[in-house]
Amino acid sequence: MTTNQTIVSISNAQEPFFLGVDVGGTNIKIGLVDDLGKTLGFEEIETQEPDGPQAAVIRIAETCRRICAQVGLDFSQITRIGLGTPGSMDIKNGLLLEPPNHPHWHHFAIRETLEKATGHKVTFVNDANAAAFGEFWVGTGEKYQSLLLLTLGTGVGGGIIIDGHLIHGFNSFGGECGHVIVDSSPNARLCVWGGGRGHLEAYASASAVAARTQEQLAAGAASSLQALYKNGTKITSKRVYEAAEKGDALAQQIIDETADYLAIGITTMVHVVDPGLVVLGGAMDFGGHDSPVGQRFLERIRSEFKQLTFSNVSEGTMIDFATLGGDAGYLGAAGIARDDYKKNKN
Amino acid sequence: MTTNQTIVSISNAQEPFFLGVDVGGTNIKIGLVDDLGKTLGFEEIETQEPDGPQAAVIRIAETCRRICAQVGLDFSQITRIGLGTPGSMDIKNGLLLEPPNHPHWHHFAIRETLEKATGHKVTFVNDANAAAFGEFWVGTGEKYQSLLLLTLGTGVGGGIIIDGHLIHGFNSFGGECGHVIVDSSPNARLCVWGGGRGHLEAYASASAVAARTQEQLAAGAASSLQALYKNGTKITSKRVYEAAEKGDALAQQIIDETADYLAIGITTMVHVVDPGLVVLGGAMDFGGHDSPVGQRFLERIRSEFKQLTFSNVSEGTMIDFATLGGDAGYLGAAGIARDDYKKNKN
Repeated sequence: MTTNQTIVSISNAQEPFFLGVDVGGTNIKIGLVDDLGKTLGFEEIETQEPDGPQAAVIRIAETCRRICAQVGLDFSQITRIGLGTPGSMDIKNGLLLEPPNHPHWHHFAIRETLEKATGHKVTFVNDANAAAFGEFWVGTGEKYQSLLLLTLGTGVGGGIIIDGHLIHGFNSFGGECGHVIVDSSPNARLCVWGGGRGHLEAYASASAVAARTQEQLAAGAASSLQALYKNGTKITSKRVYEAAEKGDALAQQIIDETADYLAIGITTMVHVVDPGLVVLGGAMDFGGHDSPVGQRFLERIRSEFKQLTFSNVSEGTMIDFATLGGDAGYLGAAGIARDDYKKNKN
Repeated sequence: MTTNQTIVSISNAQEPFFLGVDVGGTNIKIGLVDDLGKTLGFEEIETQEPDGPQAAVIRIAETCRRICAQVGLDFSQITRIGLGTPGSMDIKNGLLLEPPNHPHWHHFAIRETLEKATGHKVTFVNDANAAAFGEFWVGTGEKYQSLLLLTLGTGVGGGIIIDGHLIHGFNSFGGECGHVIVDSSPNARLCVWGGGRGHLEAYASASAVAARTQEQLAAGAASSLQALYKNGTKITSKRVYEAAEKGDALAQQIIDETADYLAIGITTMVHVVDPGLVVLGGAMDFGGHDSPVGQRFLERIRSEFKQLTFSNVSEGTMIDFATLGGDAGYLGAAGIARDDYKKNKN
């Protein structure tokens, strides 16, 4: 079980009830969530990606039933299920297309399959968009009408809610904020997914932070990380963070530059959708509010953004860390299912 | 009266009726529009900016009444009025803040004043957002659920509708697509409004096209425009277009580069909101579909966008010229008023 959850006993819970499913490359998180966004039950199972999506859907459905039984809820009392998966996908038709971390799951009608396996209606959503909706519903954004989430992890994902409405996108590509162009120079870093240059993800993901650091180390930059680098230890964004915590100047410089690229991307995105709130989620938060490095990271993004945008926009835009951690995805999936239900009453 | 209107007699019109008001720096366009987006009556009056907003609102209200009288409609039969003005503004509170081309209109409660002067409810909207809604309702986007409009004129404006919902923005700054960063280099061109660097508007507005051309001419570039430049004639984007029509290589190069900057901006914006349709409006269309230069401009944007984005996104995104011309603003203002009425029934 991950953190940040308030488990509520079924007798104190508020109907209707929803299940949120967050499919990752390694694990699948499933939560039973009430109408107020409180988690009543939770289980994390392995994805077992090579076994294919049909087998996974069966185990998801079993887990959904087991969670309900454990909290004393009849499975028929579930109103709707929300299912978040990584793209690429076709939201409208409920299809997985070619999700890169799920090579055995390509071109699969996952929504319909889960509906048949559970007997419940399923709302299908991109995983980062689900996380954004989670932060919007019961996280950093719960007092806001709109929000833009950036997830800083292996890649950079994102999700956007405007006036309560999640932007799925015409091509199920809404809120793909990692692919905003932040470097227009001819030698800009390449996007790992498509060959495009200068995408935010190529600078501000954990992989990019590691790669940028390694390039500096290879070029001979002075750093406490040189010893690790020279003995062949893998340089990760976590090691960069740890070195910065200990005062390493190169590590701090890499993190500062990461903040600068994020500020360019955030400025552009704010000028497009003006959400009023920008939330930084994902695993790479450099310690978040609990660390001087995380605080400096956030403050640098804020101050660079202030330099790059207009004064009334910077005054009217909050930038902050996410609060739900790894729970945002299943909570948001449940929240989107709830939203669908409230709007359509089915 | 501008073009592209289908005037419908009142007996063939579909209730309810709306008035759309499009306030510009020089002129104000006012149209009486039926429930299907057909224009029943239209008048264009001078803005007379130095006389201030109170005087203008009185003349707007008089014109609204006159248009109704001319088509034989009692003014009480108007359901709602839509009012589009240039920013900066506070949509929620109905205020003009500091619109740069309206120096005598700063900090004015224009919505409330027009409501009092007409006795009708007024929906307040940014002018470029109104134009986007016009193209969405009865223009290039009428078969789409979402749309991103770029207006290429003196500046670069924009507006975004996602799933039928106009993005006004938390700070009334939604769809300010001219301020997307397309050049991240330290020497990128400056934004005229705020000192930010590399904004799309600094490359792809009519003013920017003229400025970029003049810089090339000053540096001695070979061009048929050199004679004009040397005798002190002002180089405008229209002159650049005319030179390109006649085969001038420099003019064509400037237009090609404009397309390239637009493609960078469009790629970024599509990766944020994935609208499925991007519409190019405003006066600077280099002849549009009717000219080989306009066709090449559009094709270059499309092909560069295809290079910069993912194949499924480029296949699922149409880029085309707007169809409503100068009528988009008042039609969209009326359309937004209609939308407000349909959603709120008041």
